[in-house]
Amino acid sequence: MATFLRLIRFLARDGRTYYGDAILPRGVTDIAKARQARIVQGDIFGKHTVTDVVADIRLLLAPLAPEHIRTVRCLGLNYAAHAKESNMPIPQYPIVFYKPFTAIAGPIDPIPVPPVAQNLPGLDYECELVAIISKPCRDVTEDTALDYVLGYAVGNDVSHREWQLRRGGGQWSMGKGFDGWAPLGPGIVSPKLIPDPQKLAIKTRVNGVTRQESNTGDMIFSVKKTIAFLSQGTTLMPGDVIFTGTPQGVGMGRNPQVWLKDGDVVEVELEGVGTCTNKVEYTPTSKESKI
Amino acid sequence: MATFLRLIRFLARDGRTYYGDAILPRGVTDIAKARQARIVQGDIFGKHTVTDVVADIRLLLAPLAPEHIRTVRCLGLNYAAHAKESNMPIPQYPIVFYKPFTAIAGPIDPIPVPPVAQNLPGLDYECELVAIISKPCRDVTEDTALDYVLGYAVGNDVSHREWQLRRGGGQWSMGKGFDGWAPLGPGIVSPKLIPDPQKLAIKTRVNGVTRQESNTGDMIFSVKKTIAFLSQGTTLMPGDVIFTGTPQGVGMGRNPQVWLKDGDVVEVELEGVGTCTNKVEYTPTSKESKI
Repeated sequence: MATFLRLIRFLARDGRTYYGDAILPRGVTDIAKARQARIVQGDIFGKHTVTDVVADIRLLLAPLAPEHIRTVRCLGLNYAAHAKESNMPIPQYPIVFYKPFTAIAGPIDPIPVPPVAQNLPGLDYECELVAIISKPCRDVTEDTALDYVLGYAVGNDVSHREWQLRRGGGQWSMGKGFDGWAPLGPGIVSPKLIPDPQKLAIKTRVNGVTRQESNTGDMIFSVKKTIAFLSQGTTLMPGDVIFTGTPQGVGMGRNPQVWLKDGDVVEVELEGVGTCTNKVEYTPTSKESKI
Repeated sequence: MATFLRLIRFLARDGRTYYGDAILPRGVTDIAKARQARIVQGDIFGKHTVTDVVADIRLLLAPLAPEHIRTVRCLGLNYAAHAKESNMPIPQYPIVFYKPFTAIAGPIDPIPVPPVAQNLPGLDYECELVAIISKPCRDVTEDTALDYVLGYAVGNDVSHREWQLRRGGGQWSMGKGFDGWAPLGPGIVSPKLIPDPQKLAIKTRVNGVTRQESNTGDMIFSVKKTIAFLSQGTTLMPGDVIFTGTPQGVGMGRNPQVWLKDGDVVEVELEGVGTCTNKVEYTPTSKESKI
């Protein structure tokens, strides 16, 4: 049904925001390098058209508009080597937590760090393959699970270990849900281009230095196993976003531990999709809404 | 701005679904007993009108339409006596987890229990005061926090202890997020009628027997403290739903432990709001979406 191959959302030179199908110059695979897109009209989860109208991209936005994002589920400890570096056992079932939709940010947005997370050690990155759900589904089998995927993106499950692990009373959400703590993008690549999401190189660079480097083939619970598991007795909806866990190499797992700081530039990259490049930005308290 | 006093959503005798302001017969305080309502037109979070058109209520629905529910946050261990019965320390900060919006159900809907949760002991109830957010806000102070509350309802944070505590790898969401596991209602009572949400009797009955009986004055983190805490660096949005934790008396905390079973009728009641009455219903696997 979906006719786009690389769905993006962007501010165009005309000052308006569009969904588009990214146009990549020959030899380029990173959607973040697209400069033009064909405008997509209609319902991205349903009937829509990739038009012949080409627009110039001024700024790439999160690939889903806020009103199109529904539940954001995340898996923890879904790569064996990351569970090991976290001193946690290999999970028997997927470990599930959530982020609010207000955490989703664009592929080149800053990562705002509020005062409550500034003066504590523990700010960390997590590169992740992200799957977006296209159609309502419940109790799906592994065999059919990928039929409900709109496409794949790369995300950064930005985490503050102090809030996540200690001040959260054991519940991880509080240290992972601040505004903008889920950069996502640079676009959503159709399953037509990624028929098998379990063989993609994935990596993180901080200030240009590689910190995580793995392959989605190392996931404990594959995308299709994860969707089948999450949909048990639970309706997954169009616009649901699933972060599928991060591989080894996070700051918490290093010896000595290394935390992100104001001004650091974090790049998360997924093969066949591209790169999100987000700068850590300590922010003052503000009552202004960013949505 | 909000002009309703007791916001409900209902199926009317004309077969259509409306928001309405419940009409209570003299001496009745439980919204579940309303038989008529004045139809509310417009944006429940913004400009709207309580019309003079009175409709007959055929069925009370969840007081927020699925498209109006955004993030559902829940507090854990927010009553000291419940923390004690759970053998957990009194939390220093609010303990936060999430439910998907698909968990929200109406005040007299069944609680569907999927096969994955049927053959394990651990199905439990949790009566809770629920606050609904009316306006975008971030970094609010306790002094102004209640200005962002649309109103209050009672909810049941239905939980399966085996999935919540053991199979969830320590993360509680999985055992609390199945379809329909957050009955909510019977309506949303305006802060005009509940200026102080910290002195309301709250209770649970199972098959008519009182199991939980407390007062929201026993909450560790009050509604205004909770909103101030949750809004740190985080934009709360209209339609965000906050379950504020349950008092002592859950099935897990009893000796011996008592679990809900197929056919049990659970009533959660909040003073000044009313009662949700939901029947436990073991369901077969189904691919049909309930949304």
